Amino acid sequence: MLYSVEVKVMPLKELLDPQGKAVMGGLENLGIQEIRDVRVGKLIALQIEAADADSAKKIAENAAKKLLANQVMEFFEVRVL
Amino acid sequence: MLYSVEVKVMPLKELLDPQGKAVMGGLENLGIQEIRDVRVGKLIALQIEAADADSAKKIAENAAKKLLANQVMEFFEVRVL
Repeated sequence: MLYSVEVKVMPLKELLDPQGKAVMGGLENLGIQEIRDVRVGKLIALQIEAADADSAKKIAENAAKKLLANQVMEFFEVRVL
Repeated sequence: MLYSVEVKVMPLKELLDPQGKAVMGGLENLGIQEIRDVRVGKLIALQIEAADADSAKKIAENAAKKLLANQVMEFFEVRVL
């Protein structure tokens, strides 16, 4: 069966996120003042052929560890939709 | 109150996603064969000061339209956590 799986990859909370800071500056320049913090990450949508949702999740976690996330600087979360 | 809001920005389904295709090639080279499609988008995590969740959502939608998403090539979804 084909499963839709989302892998969220975000910069570690301990690290600065210069892209997020730049976006926050941009929003302030546009007059949007209510935003206190911005962090920018990636969202990777996968279509996975697997026997069940659990296997699909395992395949996505393996892909995240091997390629999608750099665990020195990023953490990831996998969600089967 | 401070609300955590996630803005998901993905390439439109009608468009090719060359970054997604590259990631899929990379996964195949790593021996991960079960993945049928990959699309790569952005996930922007915002901390928004607002009176209620509904206002926080409106502020995030405004930010997405004005800066975070390019609606010619991308669609976005806002989720208050």
